[in-house]
Amino acid sequence: MNKIQLLVAILFLSFSAQAQRNPVVVSPEVHPNHSVTFRFSAKNAKQVSLEAQFLKDKLPMQKDASGVWSVTVDPVKPDIYPYCFWVDDTQVTDPNNTVVFANERFKYSLVDIPGDTPLIHSLQNVPHGKISYRYYNSKTLGTTRPLVIYTPPGFNVNGKTKYPVLYLIHGGSDTEETWTKVGKANLIADNLIAQGKAKPMIIVMPYGNVRPKSMPEFTPDVMNDVIPFVEANYPVLTDSPNRAIAGFSVGGGQTLNIGLTNTDKFAYVCAYAPYPETEEFRKNFSNYAPDAEKMNKQLKLFTLSVGTEDFLFESVKKNIAMFKEKGLKPVSYIVDGGHTWMNCKQYLATTLPQLFK
Amino acid sequence: MNKIQLLVAILFLSFSAQAQRNPVVVSPEVHPNHSVTFRFSAKNAKQVSLEAQFLKDKLPMQKDASGVWSVTVDPVKPDIYPYCFWVDDTQVTDPNNTVVFANERFKYSLVDIPGDTPLIHSLQNVPHGKISYRYYNSKTLGTTRPLVIYTPPGFNVNGKTKYPVLYLIHGGSDTEETWTKVGKANLIADNLIAQGKAKPMIIVMPYGNVRPKSMPEFTPDVMNDVIPFVEANYPVLTDSPNRAIAGFSVGGGQTLNIGLTNTDKFAYVCAYAPYPETEEFRKNFSNYAPDAEKMNKQLKLFTLSVGTEDFLFESVKKNIAMFKEKGLKPVSYIVDGGHTWMNCKQYLATTLPQLFK
Repeated sequence: MNKIQLLVAILFLSFSAQAQRNPVVVSPEVHPNHSVTFRFSAKNAKQVSLEAQFLKDKLPMQKDASGVWSVTVDPVKPDIYPYCFWVDDTQVTDPNNTVVFANERFKYSLVDIPGDTPLIHSLQNVPHGKISYRYYNSKTLGTTRPLVIYTPPGFNVNGKTKYPVLYLIHGGSDTEETWTKVGKANLIADNLIAQGKAKPMIIVMPYGNVRPKSMPEFTPDVMNDVIPFVEANYPVLTDSPNRAIAGFSVGGGQTLNIGLTNTDKFAYVCAYAPYPETEEFRKNFSNYAPDAEKMNKQLKLFTLSVGTEDFLFESVKKNIAMFKEKGLKPVSYIVDGGHTWMNCKQYLATTLPQLFK
Repeated sequence: MNKIQLLVAILFLSFSAQAQRNPVVVSPEVHPNHSVTFRFSAKNAKQVSLEAQFLKDKLPMQKDASGVWSVTVDPVKPDIYPYCFWVDDTQVTDPNNTVVFANERFKYSLVDIPGDTPLIHSLQNVPHGKISYRYYNSKTLGTTRPLVIYTPPGFNVNGKTKYPVLYLIHGGSDTEETWTKVGKANLIADNLIAQGKAKPMIIVMPYGNVRPKSMPEFTPDVMNDVIPFVEANYPVLTDSPNRAIAGFSVGGGQTLNIGLTNTDKFAYVCAYAPYPETEEFRKNFSNYAPDAEKMNKQLKLFTLSVGTEDFLFESVKKNIAMFKEKGLKPVSYIVDGGHTWMNCKQYLATTLPQLFK
């Protein structure tokens, strides 16, 4: 920004209706060595601290003479992390950061610490697919619902290609935007496709929250409304080896509920840190008696992923053992880390190359 | 939510890593008579108040025994309004409301107060267009940039239709998402097309902030990068009577800068509360000497819109007079209200039916 622009910006801000705006500070400021400075303007606060998913504990921030609180953290492993500020007892997102975690229950900002070489979720100079925001009518739920759909680079250019489809479900209080806004599913797919590691595919990201209806209603919504909408409106392959389902947390539980009761329709079922404490999960898997021989023929890939620090680590291990005991062949993908979207991106990046092959 | 679901939700929340989450409260709660209750949980705050664009002044909230602050406001004229809470001296969005204003400079939540009959921006049971998130390479700016594109219902179904295009620019600190997330441009277009009032069209919403480059670089970015990208990737009509440009605030200024210097390319130029305090605007219009006769033949529609309480009201009136004095024929659209996205939606809804006819 040159001086004239700065002056114009200041004039504009002072003209503006939001008379109470705080001064502009740069936050977060990511340094070349992967350390990060966070800043927050709060003249009258007694204490301000930083909460971030790369920190074990909240970090106190220091106030300067102008009322701007700041802290610089040691170099952080490159990734995208949720963070927020605690101002006295109040949790706030970073007002100077545009990027907010798409969620119905909490508000975090996101800080993107780029790698020295590009990470798999980074925006790279490769052909880009497209994310579309659609509406569909759900007969199951009696309402118009949102749907986010990724189509790969070069989609439908010749009007002849038909694509396999991954149905990808978000976590418990997330929204249909979380897989792209936080999980960068589109960029992960763009990069893996550009590297020749993943097949061009359509990724459908439905909205998993069906309130005020009850959670098990999501299964018929996917089967009877979402899939028919996609298959009527996109050039897709409709046989089971070209249909996959995956999801995180509550969406991982929904993935198991939907996928394992429909193995004639999904040859790929990938549960990321699946959350089991739901009515539907207990109904499906408490006294589970699958036709394992048949299912093992139908399933080309069945994975359960989890981090060793995930609060669901023991639960996922127990379920892996249970599925094995019932004769199924789950592949377990166990990594470091917790119940986070940093891990979730890894799970997706590991899954995509294994689909539709 | 039934009791089992509630119990599961509570269990899940208590398991979760975000141990410091406040209790779930319903906020905002819009009542049938258009009054609204806002709630915020803050046990230790000394005072909490509501700021909202339907209020002249902040409204104090009252704390109950559980530490939840609330206030119920009198019936409000149905519309979508930005609001926030002030917790002691700290401005926060509503943690229980998913919908956040897409902006780089401030953080507001949005409350949607539906009309007794559907408003023009509401989600109705009509055919819906699609919003696509794209990337394009800007040679002008030397970077990959985001672009949001609306395609109308039934787009490209027969593979033969070519569409007119409206280029629609956001306000000063907004993002490429603000026209859809806050301005509901897609739903306004869906509804007007369903009513037969607007022609099916493509609406291209570029990202107007070109920092660290200087603001006038946006003009060549639109002309040499955005438009060629759209015309290479979408079935569009490329003659001037099928190309329009419109924008709000800083984007209204950019609209005048781009549109009036390229009347051979845009037959429709619609400025919504245009902000004139920029270098480029002064360069173009301080000693303005247009070939009015030629331009009046080229321009099928040239409008300036503003609200009587807009901080730019006098400025827009002055510019309308200036353009008239220079022999151009601006249509002025002057309504109640301020420099807000409530007004901005009105301006768009008034413009769309007049385009490409």
